Amino acid sequence: MDSEEFRKNGYKLIDWITDYYQHIEEYPVKAQVKPGVIYQALPENAPENHEDFDAILADFDNTLLEGMTHWQSPSFFAYFNANTSFPSILGELLTSAIGAQCMIWETSPAAAELEEKVCEWMKKACGIPDAWDGVIQDTASTATLCALLMAREKHSNFMINKYGFLAGSKYIIYCSSEAHSSIEKGVKIAGFGSDQIRKIRVDSKFAMMPEVLNKQIVDDLNAGFVPLCVVSAIGTTGSHGIDTIHEISKICKRYAIFHHVDAAHAGNATILPEFQWMIDGLDAADSYVFNPHKWMFTNFDCSLFYTKDKQALIKTFDILPEYLKTDVDSKVNNYRDWGIQLGRRFRALKLWFVLRSYGLEGIRTKFRLHISLAQEFAARLRKDGRFELLAPVPLNLICFRYKPVGVESLDQLNELNKLLEQKINETGKAYITHTKLLGKYTLRMCIGQTNVEKRHVDAFWELLEAKISKL
Amino acid sequence: MDSEEFRKNGYKLIDWITDYYQHIEEYPVKAQVKPGVIYQALPENAPENHEDFDAILADFDNTLLEGMTHWQSPSFFAYFNANTSFPSILGELLTSAIGAQCMIWETSPAAAELEEKVCEWMKKACGIPDAWDGVIQDTASTATLCALLMAREKHSNFMINKYGFLAGSKYIIYCSSEAHSSIEKGVKIAGFGSDQIRKIRVDSKFAMMPEVLNKQIVDDLNAGFVPLCVVSAIGTTGSHGIDTIHEISKICKRYAIFHHVDAAHAGNATILPEFQWMIDGLDAADSYVFNPHKWMFTNFDCSLFYTKDKQALIKTFDILPEYLKTDVDSKVNNYRDWGIQLGRRFRALKLWFVLRSYGLEGIRTKFRLHISLAQEFAARLRKDGRFELLAPVPLNLICFRYKPVGVESLDQLNELNKLLEQKINETGKAYITHTKLLGKYTLRMCIGQTNVEKRHVDAFWELLEAKISKL
Repeated sequence: MDSEEFRKNGYKLIDWITDYYQHIEEYPVKAQVKPGVIYQALPENAPENHEDFDAILADFDNTLLEGMTHWQSPSFFAYFNANTSFPSILGELLTSAIGAQCMIWETSPAAAELEEKVCEWMKKACGIPDAWDGVIQDTASTATLCALLMAREKHSNFMINKYGFLAGSKYIIYCSSEAHSSIEKGVKIAGFGSDQIRKIRVDSKFAMMPEVLNKQIVDDLNAGFVPLCVVSAIGTTGSHGIDTIHEISKICKRYAIFHHVDAAHAGNATILPEFQWMIDGLDAADSYVFNPHKWMFTNFDCSLFYTKDKQALIKTFDILPEYLKTDVDSKVNNYRDWGIQLGRRFRALKLWFVLRSYGLEGIRTKFRLHISLAQEFAARLRKDGRFELLAPVPLNLICFRYKPVGVESLDQLNELNKLLEQKINETGKAYITHTKLLGKYTLRMCIGQTNVEKRHVDAFWELLEAKISKL
Repeated sequence: MDSEEFRKNGYKLIDWITDYYQHIEEYPVKAQVKPGVIYQALPENAPENHEDFDAILADFDNTLLEGMTHWQSPSFFAYFNANTSFPSILGELLTSAIGAQCMIWETSPAAAELEEKVCEWMKKACGIPDAWDGVIQDTASTATLCALLMAREKHSNFMINKYGFLAGSKYIIYCSSEAHSSIEKGVKIAGFGSDQIRKIRVDSKFAMMPEVLNKQIVDDLNAGFVPLCVVSAIGTTGSHGIDTIHEISKICKRYAIFHHVDAAHAGNATILPEFQWMIDGLDAADSYVFNPHKWMFTNFDCSLFYTKDKQALIKTFDILPEYLKTDVDSKVNNYRDWGIQLGRRFRALKLWFVLRSYGLEGIRTKFRLHISLAQEFAARLRKDGRFELLAPVPLNLICFRYKPVGVESLDQLNELNKLLEQKINETGKAYITHTKLLGKYTLRMCIGQTNVEKRHVDAFWELLEAKISKL
């Protein structure tokens, strides 16, 4: 493919994408294929010779597309959103065309400096402490792992990095019982065991109970353990519980415990001044992550990780082989030392495209719409009588179940709601997922896709009613 | 930006990219900006309101572009390449437009099944053992970390995942003195210390000396340590040393040590049957990684990780919270359990675009050209008399220094070659980097950019001569 063929094929693909978004509501939101069908439809071997772009795109249409779940459908209410947007798609296109490797400043100065700048922009826009430094990671999983490693190394005075765990490790990591699975995963990767996690009880709003945390820490200290790190959550995945950062920070300070705050999804809402209360007291914590690639129209991956102790982060990761040394190392940010991977894409560019194309007000307007749609839907569920809300709705995640009069057994209700979820999703008209809250099978509906409007939520209500009537 | 504006802006950006590639040789390969200039040129705050796409793209042109190092320039000879190509750019564009989150099968079945298929395709094309399973990771850093964690968990019967390091850890990890910094980084992340690494001496070809490895293992066993893992290298970053996999595998088998093979760059060349000798004996090892995002025209990130023990990999990472459970979990590949991150992009798509657009033969033809250009350049250096080759040139990396008659002192030669590197790079006409081999400042030239031709290498020779004449 030479450059003129690229132009021609590029136009075709831009047309394809335009058409895709113009008709996205016609596709089943959740792919309806059976396991193995697509795998079997693909040839056993890679082709030996060149194939035309038209043939490749046609195969995408004819073979792969029916197996795609359409995350950008406005009726995608599952998990948390993984939004993209037209400006972000264009930003990512430019990133992949330039193809710069952004491991250190010298391998692309503009990428390093734009990354620093957009981290500053977001810090100011979202009320993150002024003195903190930011870096773009791929995911909150990675960012939380970085925080755990920082905690480990700061506590051990960087001696585990040097000697490993010389004696048996007595470290304890704390999070709420509603915290994300990535915390347990990160804990294990960093050389702690799942038994070294204390999952602290939550209150009726699914927020960690500070007094229970405090008691657990005291008990652990008395038992000879070493409390190392608390990972608190702003907007838990299952229930959107919001831990009280300032209370937890106070406890962490009391016992000199590292405090990382995971706001992967909900942290986006701090771009709204009226939601910055969620991170009150963050300045007393140690690190913080949220993902513009979830709600903020910036395609995956783009996870913002902030810390008050940049030097500790760098010292946790830096290794400087000769082939990476440059003359400016002391003057610039070499982001390879701010995380797990050496290789890094130019992730700041798509976020810059999004921030400039929407403007902060444009993003706020959309977020406020999403939140109000969620609040209205929750009110409708509450009023209706046939449903039960299983968690508060502070933002745009609604946790509920169908609970018809006369059905009281937990098992029966769980079966019924699982069936309802399946019936809704197999229509292809919307996609919701589930969790379990206090043993109850819970339908999760997140209203936050880039292009969602009231009519999509109304259509979901009708779908819900229709499916209930046939249960 | 609505869909018709996206079409219009998309065309513009496709034109921009076409133009960029048509004129890429006119840009300075290595950015010539001073630290801080771009950061200062950017506004202090994100804009409050929408800005037009034209304004954003103009700012990219006017402010950022001069700070980009042009990794896709055919005269980029630095580090290892991080190639993209027109088919890959289009594949990535489609990926970001669809915006699917590929953490589990159900969140996009086609993505999971295409990933499985392209891993199979590459396995067959590159002579990787039939029975092994593949997965796409972001980087070799991550893949090597996965291997270290697998080794740790298999040896401890998955007990470190559960209890952490209950007693002091006596584990030892082995690699050559030329191995990549990502191994030390991975070792530290996984809870071992840098003191638990044994960097094994290399021979004159910069390959690990198996007999030295064997002796070190015996010494460690006698001293009460626990040899855990050997990470061998195919094509070290500094010197392109190629460890003898079958010899090392034999030793690993003797002492029941996990054997991971890092072929990040050079592994791409196994698509050429004449280079599959490099991985002879791989079937006796445990895991293997190479990066199509380096040499194989597939833009970053795309790192292929293979293992003979898929179940151990999954068991190392799996955590199944309720909100990720699906009815098909037992029947499909849920790749979230095959690595560090939960969130995953549809990386298989760009590799599929590349494999189909070039065909295996198209890739082979380009690789053979790159290797022959490197061999010819090395021959020219050898013949000339003013240069010294500091490592063998098995593939496309040339390690050399300028060594004029009469200059013998190591310090003087090091200074001279550092100056030469700087003089070359500041012309903007080509970009090379350096390493140190046996204390010698070594110029590294990797000939492998997607579009490099003989004329670019010839031009580099002329540049080299011109700069030498003025030293």
